[in-house]
Amino acid sequence: MSYFDAKHQTIINNFNSKWEGLNTIESLAKQYEINDIAQDNNLKLLQTLVYFDLQNQSGREGSDAIDRYGNDWELKTANADLVSGFSTNHHTNHERIAQFRKERWLFSIYSGIELKEVYAMSPKTLEPYFTDWTNKVNDKSAAGMDNPHINNPKIPIKFVCTNGIKVYPVNTTNPIDPAEVLKTL
Amino acid sequence: MSYFDAKHQTIINNFNSKWEGLNTIESLAKQYEINDIAQDNNLKLLQTLVYFDLQNQSGREGSDAIDRYGNDWELKTANADLVSGFSTNHHTNHERIAQFRKERWLFSIYSGIELKEVYAMSPKTLEPYFTDWTNKVNDKSAAGMDNPHINNPKIPIKFVCTNGIKVYPVNTTNPIDPAEVLKTL
Repeated sequence: MSYFDAKHQTIINNFNSKWEGLNTIESLAKQYEINDIAQDNNLKLLQTLVYFDLQNQSGREGSDAIDRYGNDWELKTANADLVSGFSTNHHTNHERIAQFRKERWLFSIYSGIELKEVYAMSPKTLEPYFTDWTNKVNDKSAAGMDNPHINNPKIPIKFVCTNGIKVYPVNTTNPIDPAEVLKTL
Repeated sequence: MSYFDAKHQTIINNFNSKWEGLNTIESLAKQYEINDIAQDNNLKLLQTLVYFDLQNQSGREGSDAIDRYGNDWELKTANADLVSGFSTNHHTNHERIAQFRKERWLFSIYSGIELKEVYAMSPKTLEPYFTDWTNKVNDKSAAGMDNPHINNPKIPIKFVCTNGIKVYPVNTTNPIDPAEVLKTL
């Protein structure tokens, strides 16, 4: 195949016809204040906002989303085909951990782009991780690190499945609203 | 609207019907060794690979892609609605800059998910930036930083449009193949 020959143009045209389907999702995303579905984790963020009726806060200071009661949520996704844990934050310091302790957590597990399971979790349930990270940041501080922090500590998928409240697939006879079940911490 | 009531279910179903279009792109992406189009910049990466007939190298050590001559390419995208420069690397140190100097560069400029212009660029043209970053890493080193590096230095879109070789939109009477035009540096 040569550049832009007949075969290459056919491949490009085939791609373009598939890409067109994205435009309808892109315009839906805009209603949720998502500016670019092809960037970051925005397609999966959109799905989470739609499924759990959350309001987008990404791009603002603080949490990822707020629920109908105004409570803050940290939204995490993991592709179980590729990783065994949820990423958190590349610059996890004391301030960030203090914020983590005030938020509700929603963990979405994917296989590729297919949503498999979602778990809601109270920050109390995650306290063993917060304590561990706090100790590690203290160690960095004691070792003289400027702006002491740890890089992207993980929360294992296994821990989430064992200790979280399963909210997806939705039990259609008795749907569990994450906002309701974690209304009070 | 209450959680999972009739209105919420309608919104979810509407989203799901739009999401279905992603499955055809996801299966195309797999042919290009892209495992998750909803992660990172993978949708735009796929578009670049298709349009410029490049082979995916992301996930491997080294460059983002190789061309028909086996040359290494650094692929960059920027959404001009949101930013004025191309991101590079969060951990730009001397080794990374040495690699940058050996690669061809392809800069894709988007408005949202719409591809507007693409420019190819020789590393020689980018040398003013590489020199500047090298000096800044040396400064960090002199200041005693462990693993001296700078965080995600930018290349302005304006610089790229002024100094790059425009390869998209394709001039259909005289298409410019990035691999060919930068075959020798």
